[in-house]
Amino acid sequence: MSTRLTLSLDAMGGDNAPQMVVEGVDIALARLPQVDFLLFGDEGRLAPLLDRFPRVKGVSQVRHTDSVVSNHEKPSLALRTGRNSSMGLAIDAVRAGEAAGLVSAGNTGALMAMAMFALKMLPGIDRPAIATCFPTRRGESVMLDLGANVECDADNLVQFAVMGEVFARNVLGLEQPSIGILNIGAEGLKGNEAVKNAAATLQRTDLPISFYGFVEGDDIGAGTVDVVVTDGFTGNIALKTAEGTAMLFGQFLKEALSASPLARLGGLLARSALNTFRMRVDPRRYNGAVLLGLDGICVKSHGGTDALGFANAIRIAVEMAAHGFNEGIKRDLAHLSTAQRTPRRAAAG
Amino acid sequence: MSTRLTLSLDAMGGDNAPQMVVEGVDIALARLPQVDFLLFGDEGRLAPLLDRFPRVKGVSQVRHTDSVVSNHEKPSLALRTGRNSSMGLAIDAVRAGEAAGLVSAGNTGALMAMAMFALKMLPGIDRPAIATCFPTRRGESVMLDLGANVECDADNLVQFAVMGEVFARNVLGLEQPSIGILNIGAEGLKGNEAVKNAAATLQRTDLPISFYGFVEGDDIGAGTVDVVVTDGFTGNIALKTAEGTAMLFGQFLKEALSASPLARLGGLLARSALNTFRMRVDPRRYNGAVLLGLDGICVKSHGGTDALGFANAIRIAVEMAAHGFNEGIKRDLAHLSTAQRTPRRAAAG
Repeated sequence: MSTRLTLSLDAMGGDNAPQMVVEGVDIALARLPQVDFLLFGDEGRLAPLLDRFPRVKGVSQVRHTDSVVSNHEKPSLALRTGRNSSMGLAIDAVRAGEAAGLVSAGNTGALMAMAMFALKMLPGIDRPAIATCFPTRRGESVMLDLGANVECDADNLVQFAVMGEVFARNVLGLEQPSIGILNIGAEGLKGNEAVKNAAATLQRTDLPISFYGFVEGDDIGAGTVDVVVTDGFTGNIALKTAEGTAMLFGQFLKEALSASPLARLGGLLARSALNTFRMRVDPRRYNGAVLLGLDGICVKSHGGTDALGFANAIRIAVEMAAHGFNEGIKRDLAHLSTAQRTPRRAAAG
Repeated sequence: MSTRLTLSLDAMGGDNAPQMVVEGVDIALARLPQVDFLLFGDEGRLAPLLDRFPRVKGVSQVRHTDSVVSNHEKPSLALRTGRNSSMGLAIDAVRAGEAAGLVSAGNTGALMAMAMFALKMLPGIDRPAIATCFPTRRGESVMLDLGANVECDADNLVQFAVMGEVFARNVLGLEQPSIGILNIGAEGLKGNEAVKNAAATLQRTDLPISFYGFVEGDDIGAGTVDVVVTDGFTGNIALKTAEGTAMLFGQFLKEALSASPLARLGGLLARSALNTFRMRVDPRRYNGAVLLGLDGICVKSHGGTDALGFANAIRIAVEMAAHGFNEGIKRDLAHLSTAQRTPRRAAAG
């Protein structure tokens, strides 16, 4: 990117904030030198941290607030009372055009409610969806929704498919990403009404998107499609199940490689390769879920992440802002809605 | 076990049947010598296989049928026309008391429909649930439902909790298994109405079961609870997501251990430990899902499994039959329904 851009950060959101936020900025700056930051939070706690990270201090402006949205606060309450919280102010900076996007590791429900209220939805999108990238046997894919919408109808799923398609093209750089709907069988017979009707719409539609059909849980890791579409309940559980399985594997592997002197020696010799393996599946590398459907770039970091994970969430927001994601998704949605209104010409026409 | 028991097998169900069925029996017999088998299927194909496996031939009786329920057959059609199929006859042998339980790797929906019709439901249970054991960081846990019920209400989930509890006590041998309901947050605020209402019932109830509360996707691999209760849509996707993640990990690890001569040498030295690790997470070890809630033991093997996986499904059916699982679950359900009717005595009473 050639010009500097500014991100706003909820410096108080997340279990290890504000320390991991400031340290995360420091890590991010090593690879993203052209970014300025607005840090919203407790100046008394942020100032000494910035003294320890002069590189961060040089590109950051602290905007003080005492108010923080707690992790257990209901979204409705946060919406009424959280305007001046570190989260609320970080969102407002995007709304006001001061920042090109925001990152928060705070309360997901509150972030979604406040961001919807302040930034508004994109035309044609009813509800935001949480999307993330994840590693697969074929590379990287996107999954959405990951918990913004507990119950979804077919229209929601179709909108998620469209948003996921645009995201995969813009952020993963894929030319024609394939879309699959998560279901309990690849055949059309199975599943609930929402997935069946959404699949019927995507198959019938004249949208210029590449719809694969239904995929199953094991297709997520296989990378069968570039975009996995599902409701927020199932998506959240699938993503966390994958994380839990990864941790289980990590522990079993560690136990195996310390089971005998020979295994320990083998593990030592293969250490560098095993570190590459660990890095490849490190959940921190995939930290940073995007709230899609809002008129503004909003990235949610895992609340329990560390500085490295937070740095990745920053990287995602910067990439989206630098590539003009918000303008891109608006353009694509307008194009898609035109396509939907224009019937496909008959072959003999 | 001291007395012989008989299992009935759908010898034609599954992608690799009947070969993997006969070979599976052979593997199972090495550890379970006290079992006789009724093999339902095509005698012309079974006879030459039995000649190759004389140990299996010695304890098996072939009951010929030409009819097979295909994988794509709708359950309703199977119910009308499948009575004389290898699957239908294997179920009938249990109903008639000829066999103590059955194993099939065939069409899940058809198996469920036909088994419900022939064996009937246990008193107090509306719908069967598919349950399986899986490895965790703490040992082994049970999850249900894995796809029998796409949509579940709170009553279904409560019944699954009760059946899962009895299963964990009888098959995993746990004294007081803990039960969790799968949700997208541990707090009570989150989730759909079914999980919230089911949790409220299990918290309030006088059932002598140990209810932990909500668990999340990563608690599955962590082994936070002994029994994970969920609807069939979510459970099926969670289980398959875990399997897909396991395969992803396996591939990444293999790639890491062949990345350099040093890594290859390390892998070679640690080979025995890595084989133990692979065995620990081998999905074939966990093959064999149980259809709970039926008045009879019915084990569903994965359709794509091999002989080793099918042998494990046989082992589960034998263990359940040998421990009188069906009598146990009836006794426990009667006991629980008495407990539900009897109000807890007041502390001062």
